[in-house]
Formats: sequence, C-alpha cells, structure tokens
Amino acid sequence: MSRALELAHNGPATGINPRVGCVIIAADGSVVAEGWHRGVGTAHAEVDALSKLPHGGARGTTAVVTLEPCNHTGHTGPCSVALIEAGVARVVYAVSDPGHASGGGAARLRAAGVDVISGVLADAVDDFLDDWLTAARLGRPHVTVKWASSLDGRIAAADGTSQWITGTAARQRVHEQREGSDAILVGTGTVLADDPSLTARGDGGELLAAQPTPVIVGTRSIPSDAAVFRHPRRPILIATHDVADVLRDLRARGFRRAYVEGGPTLVSAFVAAGLVDEYLIYLAPSLIGGDKLALGDIGVATIGEQRRLDIVSVEQLGADLLVTARPRRAPASTVKEGV
Amino acid sequence: MSRALELAHNGPATGINPRVGCVIIAADGSVVAEGWHRGVGTAHAEVDALSKLPHGGARGTTAVVTLEPCNHTGHTGPCSVALIEAGVARVVYAVSDPGHASGGGAARLRAAGVDVISGVLADAVDDFLDDWLTAARLGRPHVTVKWASSLDGRIAAADGTSQWITGTAARQRVHEQREGSDAILVGTGTVLADDPSLTARGDGGELLAAQPTPVIVGTRSIPSDAAVFRHPRRPILIATHDVADVLRDLRARGFRRAYVEGGPTLVSAFVAAGLVDEYLIYLAPSLIGGDKLALGDIGVATIGEQRRLDIVSVEQLGADLLVTARPRRAPASTVKEGV
Ligand SMILES: NC(=O)c1ccc[n+]([C@@H]2O[C@H](COP(=O)([O-])OP(=O)(O)OC[C@H]3O[C@@H](n4cnc5c(N)ncnc54)[C@H](OP(=O)(O)O)[C@@H]3O)[C@@H](O)[C@H]2O)c1
Ligand SMILES: NC(=O)c1ccc[n+]([C@@H]2O[C@H](COP(=O)([O-])OP(=O)(O)OC[C@H]3O[C@@H](n4cnc5c(N)ncnc54)[C@H](OP(=O)(O)O)[C@@H]3O)[C@@H](O)[C@H]2O)c1
Repeated sequence: MSRALELAHNGPATGINPRVGCVIIAADGSVVAEGWHRGVGTAHAEVDALSKLPHGGARGTTAVVTLEPCNHTGHTGPCSVALIEAGVARVVYAVSDPGHASGGGAARLRAAGVDVISGVLADAVDDFLDDWLTAARLGRPHVTVKWASSLDGRIAAADGTSQWITGTAARQRVHEQREGSDAILVGTGTVLADDPSLTARGDGGELLAAQPTPVIVGTRSIPSDAAVFRHPRRPILIATHDVADVLRDLRARGFRRAYVEGGPTLVSAFVAAGLVDEYLIYLAPSLIGGDKLALGDIGVATIGEQRRLDIVSVEQLGADLLVTARPRRAPASTVKEGV
Repeated sequence: MSRALELAHNGPATGINPRVGCVIIAADGSVVAEGWHRGVGTAHAEVDALSKLPHGGARGTTAVVTLEPCNHTGHTGPCSVALIEAGVARVVYAVSDPGHASGGGAARLRAAGVDVISGVLADAVDDFLDDWLTAARLGRPHVTVKWASSLDGRIAAADGTSQWITGTAARQRVHEQREGSDAILVGTGTVLADDPSLTARGDGGELLAAQPTPVIVGTRSIPSDAAVFRHPRRPILIATHDVADVLRDLRARGFRRAYVEGGPTLVSAFVAAGLVDEYLIYLAPSLIGGDKLALGDIGVATIGEQRRLDIVSVEQLGADLLVTARPRRAPASTVKEGV
C-alpha cells in the first residue's frame, strides 16, 4: 500500500478527480504491474495497471489500490468491472469512495466473488486525499482561507497601505499555494482596491506551471483593463454574496481546491458560513493597530460561540509565522491539550 | 564567571537592585570565597564574598564578578573601595554598570593599581540582567506588555464575554509572570469591567510567594469594595493618562519590572509611546471577529510606520501559542531573516 500511495503522488493535485495509485501483486508476492490516475478522461489507476499486463496476466492476482475501486461509468468504465473481468482474486484498498455515483465498488467486487479488504493504511491515505475527500463527501470544493496580518490582526495601516507586512519567504509560499489550487477567490473590493494579477509566480516573477482560475465574488463590475483580465486563465465573475452558491458553481466546474485570499469581507463570509476546511494565517512580527482588520464580524455574539480551531502546525518563514489550522471537530466541551 | 553567574541567580528577581554573583580566586586558581547580593540594604556580592575571608585573606586574589563593582555609597559603601582595601590584585567582570551614580568602579580600581578585565561572558550576563540593565540605562522600569487574544486579535466576544479564550496552561504561565514582577498595571476600565484580584496564584488558586503591587492607571475612581483592595499589597492608583509619568512614579518606588496586563486602552498607550521592552502575546486557537480588540490605535498612519518586532520565541502552552517578542532594534531597512 505504501508503494500504491507513492504512485498516487504522481496524480493531479487539482481538479475533480482524486490521486490514486495501484499495484498488482502475483500469488508469489512479486509486483507485476503498477499504475496511477493522471486526471479527468484518462484511465483510472487500476485500469492503468491492468493495461500493462498481457491478456489473462491478472488472473488470480491481488490489486492493492489507495481508493475503493469506482463503480460508475464516466469518461471511463467502472474499475470494479474491469478488475472482475481481468480475474483479479483479491482487492486491498485504503479508503472508501464517498461518492454517490462512484461508491459501491467493494460491494460489486464481493458480489462477484472477489476477496475484498479495506482500511489498510487508511489514516495516511485519508490525510493525503483530505481535499478530495472533503470535496466528494460535502459535494463542494475543499476551501482554504488565507490571510496575512500583523500579530494584532491588521492587514493594512490607517491609510490602506499594506506593502509589505510579510516577507519574501511567506509571499513565495502563497504563490506555491495558489499553484496547488483550482481557483483563487477574492471579493470585488480587493480587485477594485489593489488590481491584483492573481497569478502563481516564482521568485523571479515568472509564471509557475499551473495557474489557478481567478474567481471574483461580488456585484460591482470590474474595469475591463483590470490586471486579472490578463491572467492566463479567464476569470470567473460571480455576482452574489452567497458563498455556498459560489462553491456550488465551482463544484459544477470540476474544481477541487478553492483558495480564498480575501479581502476581509469575503473571508469573513466564508468563516461565518462555516465553509472553511483549512486556515493559513500568516502572522508578521509587527503591530499596526487601527481599523484595517483581517477578519470582520463572523457572527460570534458571546464567547461560547467563538470558532475554535485545531492548530496543525506553526512554521517560521523568514521572520514571519505561518499558522495552519482546521475547524475543531471535537465537541466544544472537550479541552484539547498539547497540539 | 559561569560560577559567578550561577551565584547571581540566587539574587532578587524584582526591585531596584540587580542580581550579582562574585567568586574570589587565589593565585593558585582555587576558589576561596563566593558571594551574591540578596537585595536592597544587604551586602553587595563582592562584599558578601570578601566577608567570608579572614582579615588579609583577599590579598593578591582575583575577584570575578558579573557586574562592574559599584562606585557609590548607598545603603552600603562602594564595592570598588572594599576591593581595593582588601588588597584584591585583579578584578574580572562581565558587564558595565550603566548607572550615573553607581558606575565608574572600574576606573577607580584601575587608578588604585588593580588590574581590571571587563567583558568576560558579557552576552550571557547581559541577557540575564536584561530587565535590570533596561531599568538602569533608561531610568525607568523594564516594561512587559501581555495580552491574550484569538488568532484574529480579539480579546472578547461582541457582548464583552471573554472567559475563556486561552486555556489553563497559558493562564498559569501568566500567574508565574505576575509573580516575577514588581508591579502589575491595568487601566481603570479593566477594574471597572472585570473586578480582577490581580494576585499571582497557583494551580489551586493559592497565593504564590511573591506578589506584584497592583497599579491602576486612570482618573475614574474605583469602588472601595473592589477585589483589588483585598490584594496582599496595597494598590497604587495613578490618576493620569501619561504612561511615561506612570513609569517615573514606579521607578521612584524602586520597581524594576512592570507587567502591563491591559486593557486595550492602557496597552495601546504603552505601545504608542514606545515604552515596551517585551511583548508576551498569547494566541488562542480561535476566531472571534467583531470589535473587541487587543490593541486599538497605536498611531500607525502608513505601513512604513508599523511597529516591527523581533520574535524571541514561540511556545505551545496547551492548545495556545505564546509569542515572545521585542521591539526591533535594527534599522527598518534591514530585513532580518530566520529568527
Ligand atoms: N493582507 C491580506 O491577506 C489581504 C488579502 C486581500 C485583500 N486585502 C485588502 O482588503 C481590502 C479590501 O477589503 P474588502 O473587504 O472590501 O475586500 P473583499 O472581501 O475582496 O471585497 C468585498 C466585496 O465582496 C463582495 N462580497 C462577496 N461576498 C460577500 C458577502 N458575503 N458579503 C458582503 N460582500 C460580499 C461585495 O462586493 P459587491 O459590493 O461588489 O457586491 C463586497 O463589497 C483591500 O484594501 C486589500 O488590500 C488584504
Ligand atoms: N484578554 C486580555 O488580555 C485582557 C486584559 C485586560 C483587560 N481586558 C478587557 O479589556 C476591557 C477593558 O478595556 P479598556 O480599554 O477600557 O481597559 P483599560 O485600558 O484597563 O482602561 C481604560 C482606562 O484607562 C485609563 N487610561 C490610562 N491611560 C490612558 C491613556 N493613555 N489614554 C486613555 N486612557 C487611559 C482611562 O481611564 P479614566 O477614564 O478613568 O481616566 C481609560 O478609560 C475589559 O472588558 C477587560 O475584560 C482583556
């Protein structure tokens, strides 16, 4: 399974399809084929691995795959059927496919007399597939919210100037995170105030290989000469204040990962709606004071309603801190000590 | 010098006098006496060490002392004179005494023919004496400002409730920090809103050995039944908004360490005035939003004026983070990478 997970890493980091790896093992324990999924429209990992064997070569083998073999016909046929037809004797997988349409592969395999074992290395694969599983389970893209503030939670000085609060190492990390996302979301306020290009760039300002689609949320119109219109991907303008609607729209476009960069109005709307899976909070070693806040009102009337997070990590990037956190899943009454 | 520094740790953590250690070494390299300073009105470290030797026993020895021997007559006579009269041949010290009245001991020793070497282990001793050196150099107490906020810089929910944002480990650390301070400062707003006891307490709520004097800054009067009037030390009420005046008053009382606990108005006044030596920022893993901010206006009009800090450490206390920082001393144009 470790090898299958390694193979899965070759897969697509963004988009609607998961990263899956598969290893076919003969009765004598030797690996006879390996495969992985390369993205929408291409063979699934199991089919990719089977394709490397001669006709009949999979008979009596064990297929080890990171995700439950799918059970539906999309761009390709169901993997469960492919495995059955190839005569695979046993399927070992890590995590179940939560999809309504695609789930059920294990049952179909068992019904056909294939021996099925699930849950092997499930935690590691669960972590690895976190964004895709969120998207599949909740039927919406995985949402990361990012902001960069001073230690007192400010994103700009009184006159609106904000360059620079964080240093180059932190800003470079943001570009890498943009690159790993399907979409980068901002409100109209940010576009009108800053005219950002919303591209993922390297140290030298060059465009990185993958580019997120810019998504601009809000009803005001954007000047036709805005920098975002020179983005390699055509911007999506969504004239709503309903962030759940925004996510439905992005899901329909096959987006897996949404990276919400601000400003405070849009970020606060996502937080208030409980539609954040991951927080990336960059804290610069400075104090600013005043009224330019990273987060506005998020509907916390009394302290019992504060949004508790679990801190996943704290990193130093140059002189800045990056706090990665997730909404706390444990009941509010449980005190979690020692992260 | 390491041994002298060890001995210095026995000294008083608060008050106007420094923690100093002294070791007397014979010509053959053996340690013949050790001493340290116990606080106002008691023998200084050098005199304490000399007192352990018989008359004439210090002749031709080397005195190793963490701080330049003093040169003035206070509760006790000048140490420089005591060392000269005892016939000490050489004095080795770490850091110079910045005091106007007490400095100059090295010059007096040299004039009397004593061999003087300074700067040995100076960095370690400088760190150890940081608060006292600040107080001596600037003629005011060393100021620590503490606040506890959510990751977005809030100290309470919309309705003013704030119990609890941080967990027990963080709160316990605050009590230890109170214990190590001469004074704990709050504005009248905090007393009127929260009626805090401002004592240093242990896990079980018991009073710790040392108690800081509560200092309440502001012009409004405090009800006579306020909890702070049951504090083991009589509260000091200072009816001003000028925080420099407050520090002059505390200095005159022989206070070395001031611990400013809030609220936001008083903290912001200290930050705006540039009168903070150390920040202790407790960040709870939560988001609150709204208008109850840890820091208000600190006079930063444009981003170039933001108050840059150097982060000294980031600790996890239970689920909370404690960021310890100091005002950045390097020029603003210097980018400091990797703290
Ligand atoms: N430091 C950082 O990390 C960072 C990042 C980004 C931006 N910023 C700063 O943020 C400032 C802009 O702030 P902002 O709050 O105006 O920006 P914003 O959140 O990007 O845009 C606000 C606009 O978004 C629309 N919107 C979308 N969903 C909404 C909802 N649920 N509720 C209300 N409005 C919604 C509204 O536009 P319509 O009125 O058009 O409908 C609203 O006026 C800029 O100065 C920028 O520099 C800082
Ligand atoms: N989470 C935390 O770390 C923490 C710590 C402490 C307090 N708090 C919260 O803070 C809230 C109280 O806030 P606050 O800002 O009113 O408290 P505050 O700073 O304790 O008190 C404000 C008062 O201090 C006086 N003052 C002293 N120096 C001043 C100056 N330079 N400028 C203006 N006024 C000065 C004024 O009193 P006069 O009007 O009497 O002259 C002013 O009204 C409470 O709800 C409390 O729970 C939170």
